[in-house]
Amino acid sequence: MTENSYPELYGFWRSSATYRVRVALGLKQIQTIEHTIDIDGGAQRDPAFIAINPLGAVPAFIEPGQPALTQSLAILEYLDETVSEPALMPADARGRARVRSIAAMLTSDTHPLLVPRVKRYLKEDIGMDDAGWRRWQTHWMSTGLEAVEARLACEPDTGTFCHGDHVTIADICLASVTVVRDVFGIKIANIPTIDRIIQTCESLPAFMAAKPSRQTGAPQAAR
Amino acid sequence: MTENSYPELYGFWRSSATYRVRVALGLKQIQTIEHTIDIDGGAQRDPAFIAINPLGAVPAFIEPGQPALTQSLAILEYLDETVSEPALMPADARGRARVRSIAAMLTSDTHPLLVPRVKRYLKEDIGMDDAGWRRWQTHWMSTGLEAVEARLACEPDTGTFCHGDHVTIADICLASVTVVRDVFGIKIANIPTIDRIIQTCESLPAFMAAKPSRQTGAPQAAR
Repeated sequence: MTENSYPELYGFWRSSATYRVRVALGLKQIQTIEHTIDIDGGAQRDPAFIAINPLGAVPAFIEPGQPALTQSLAILEYLDETVSEPALMPADARGRARVRSIAAMLTSDTHPLLVPRVKRYLKEDIGMDDAGWRRWQTHWMSTGLEAVEARLACEPDTGTFCHGDHVTIADICLASVTVVRDVFGIKIANIPTIDRIIQTCESLPAFMAAKPSRQTGAPQAAR
Repeated sequence: MTENSYPELYGFWRSSATYRVRVALGLKQIQTIEHTIDIDGGAQRDPAFIAINPLGAVPAFIEPGQPALTQSLAILEYLDETVSEPALMPADARGRARVRSIAAMLTSDTHPLLVPRVKRYLKEDIGMDDAGWRRWQTHWMSTGLEAVEARLACEPDTGTFCHGDHVTIADICLASVTVVRDVFGIKIANIPTIDRIIQTCESLPAFMAAKPSRQTGAPQAAR
């Protein structure tokens, strides 16, 4: 098998959205070639990457001979539809709605406020300083995780993981926010259900291997 | 049939996420009782609504005797899985990935930056003025729509609608951003493919009936 016959993932060590895809690929045991796009250095806007993904965004997941798939949740659902084991979604429609709803609280309500392009706008256009950015980051990360905690703590479908006793897309999205929280050293108290679930996730090889600190390009300080 | 045997939708006239669910319910011809939660007045934090949806967020979709379903995309996928006609997703996995990816560009990359709680933070904590908010709103709406336009204009799967010749979740999410753009009177030039698709969507009864200006609670000026 030549290198070209593997799927390719374009990502960045710290990218929360790349992490999600990396975990799913690990759980499904799909061997992939990962390429680093240095977001801090602006490599997502390089012509070389634009030729691969005209959107200039990571993650991009490319199956041999196919156009790039983009947007982490779309990639997760695709992987789950095309590689059945282990299933990352519940078997029932209401269960899937709950998993997608928890995932959206993290990937729509929380994460988009914390990305580099928002930081750039706030710093360059509004003149926000580092302390202001830190408050912003902490505020939205806390708001998002506390809202998820409120659900997980009281809804009967919560189990070992966010939904029952198997890893779902909700756990992958939850862990994708907590790994970034940890990269930035943000402390959020009083989320015991999340802490418990994340501890279980992080004991699984696919989550361990996907950690930002273990990726190519991670600075020494993050290791 | 008593009023209680219909599903209920809790929403707000101008809410982009409520609009999405309203369009899907209309397309699927699911009769629903809609209740207004006055987001501008803070009614989403009223104990009466928290008892219905502890998250204090619209939209909330409630089937008789069931807990609330939340997050517009999770509700759209649920409606599509449980009421088959008309299908709002393509039949093939790569098509579904493309539709979910376009939807996420709007519901994750764009819309979360434009919601009332972000406006409140920017105004109250950072002291952003009305002109600053307008620039912010215009910047992120343009960035999001222009990125979607770039895809729609060059990808071969674009048809009468975002994906082929049938309405999908991608069209619903696209229209949910353009209706809010119109409520706020924001002009974005050079998105001809989007303009064409939206014009077609808006000729359909389900999109027409879901328009913010036609909802209970819409101010006279928006009608």
